[in-house]
Amino acid sequence: MLNEFSLISRYFSRPSQGPGSALLGVGDDCALLAPRPGKVLAVSTDMLVEGRHFFAGTDARALGHKTLAVNLSDLAAMGASPRAFTLALALPSIDEAWLEAFSAGLFALADPAGCELIGGDTTRGPLTLCVTVFGDVDAGRALRRDAAQPGDDVWVSGTLGDARLALGALRDEWTLSAAELAETRRAMDWPEPQLALGMALAGVAHAALDISDGLAGDLNHILTRSNVGACIDIDALPRSATLTRQPSRIQRQCTIAGGDDYQLCFSAPAHARDAVLAAGRLAGTSVSRVGTITAFDTRADATRIVWTDAGGQPLALALRGFDHFDD
Amino acid sequence: MLNEFSLISRYFSRPSQGPGSALLGVGDDCALLAPRPGKVLAVSTDMLVEGRHFFAGTDARALGHKTLAVNLSDLAAMGASPRAFTLALALPSIDEAWLEAFSAGLFALADPAGCELIGGDTTRGPLTLCVTVFGDVDAGRALRRDAAQPGDDVWVSGTLGDARLALGALRDEWTLSAAELAETRRAMDWPEPQLALGMALAGVAHAALDISDGLAGDLNHILTRSNVGACIDIDALPRSATLTRQPSRIQRQCTIAGGDDYQLCFSAPAHARDAVLAAGRLAGTSVSRVGTITAFDTRADATRIVWTDAGGQPLALALRGFDHFDD
Repeated sequence: MLNEFSLISRYFSRPSQGPGSALLGVGDDCALLAPRPGKVLAVSTDMLVEGRHFFAGTDARALGHKTLAVNLSDLAAMGASPRAFTLALALPSIDEAWLEAFSAGLFALADPAGCELIGGDTTRGPLTLCVTVFGDVDAGRALRRDAAQPGDDVWVSGTLGDARLALGALRDEWTLSAAELAETRRAMDWPEPQLALGMALAGVAHAALDISDGLAGDLNHILTRSNVGACIDIDALPRSATLTRQPSRIQRQCTIAGGDDYQLCFSAPAHARDAVLAAGRLAGTSVSRVGTITAFDTRADATRIVWTDAGGQPLALALRGFDHFDD
Repeated sequence: MLNEFSLISRYFSRPSQGPGSALLGVGDDCALLAPRPGKVLAVSTDMLVEGRHFFAGTDARALGHKTLAVNLSDLAAMGASPRAFTLALALPSIDEAWLEAFSAGLFALADPAGCELIGGDTTRGPLTLCVTVFGDVDAGRALRRDAAQPGDDVWVSGTLGDARLALGALRDEWTLSAAELAETRRAMDWPEPQLALGMALAGVAHAALDISDGLAGDLNHILTRSNVGACIDIDALPRSATLTRQPSRIQRQCTIAGGDDYQLCFSAPAHARDAVLAAGRLAGTSVSRVGTITAFDTRADATRIVWTDAGGQPLALALRGFDHFDD
């Protein structure tokens, strides 16, 4: 049986990746890493727990992909360029086929992104994955959550809600055809971090974040930190053809209070519309203008987000984002 | 009940800590961090799992301390100066008294060390703690594992084996008096990372690591990466008065194949003996010379470590370090 050290050596040690690589990688007490000249490091950490963030028995290759993807999505949301990551994992047992597939999924995403594994920790325990990711960003151009301005457009990349649509079908909340489930499950299991878009938006957009817990809850983080409100046209929210075929109630739940989208939500001044569209084209990602940032009086007992239909009529919605402590 | 966001806000958000602090801390998609001028970042990650790294029911304040301490110990082993850390935790439920005590233990160590919490993640799950820690170090003076030279002295800081002595008593492998258990349990629950010593040794010592899985196994990491061997005087290994009162068999098991010591093991040239002793005095930590680095022929079927008694007689020992996948 493999021990802890041969496991790391076999599945998680990689040759150094050239001039952009860390000064010292896997195998010492610490890795050594410096941002490229003129940049600072963007740092984010995410923990994935079996039964909470993924189903027991999830395909190991998909899980390797998703474990890194959700972290790269945080880099995308800052406009940062991937550099490196650490991986800590607790495994109930050493299953070589599982490790082979997991590491294949992990590196198939990491390698083309230029994101080098520089350290980690392995232990026995309930299946738990924790990645910390590092990217380079120009501190003055980083896409922060506190930078939205009244009058900004609100934009969303890609489409929203497919991962939530698949989850609902797997939970028997609603029914999908086999083809619909396969298609939306791909969105759930293989999210694509919007790295190229994030980098193209640095210096163009004002505020940004990635939508991981549902648009309603996540947009609120931008609004609260920027001390602004927003008016969002619910009919403008981008949806896949599959989601558009579902009843309106399900469409709204999935797009607004979904989760696991890993698309970017960002604000940008109206004069930057052409630049935003150009960034989307450069990144090969659709970008949809869905609303406007508004002034917000914290003393008024109002909601930060006014949802309207395409005609501008306000809607009464009781929706919220995903909380990892809800049952 | 607290949700995920109010939990982070109440227990894990701290005011910015002044000029040395990160450019952007808790609350955005990423934190922003840069090494101080002329330095690079040393990065390490460790995951602690209930039932594996600590007993269920471990005092929450001690656990907060130890979670960060084992990571700071990796910085010490590189000679790095603490800057920041991220914390991801899975909690079976939200227990405010537990969180209060855990965060108190965490920050009581972090604050005087100048180590700022810059980000994290919380979720529901089996109790699991994952810290990634960042320190500043001069890349050319970092204490790497691959820098030991034949002829170097081998040194150990503090005393070894008390944490293993306590663990054995708790597991009924042997018996200790209540006073002995209390004293050694303190070594197990409240390890002190040797930060000051590590920084004082940067540029003085050749190779270093922290002893977390037992001297025999950990020293082997230095020897393998440096392609050298070592001759260690088992009678010179520093022990507490409590451990010295135990039978020789237990003393050897605890000092050589113990774990959870978080002392530094390092090599330094013989001409640096005075400088090493001065570093120990500066750090307020004892340092003991326990052996010598030797040339090693990888083609010979020999063990890398020759253990001797005080008279220089080789001993036959069947000991090994701790593997987190052993049962």
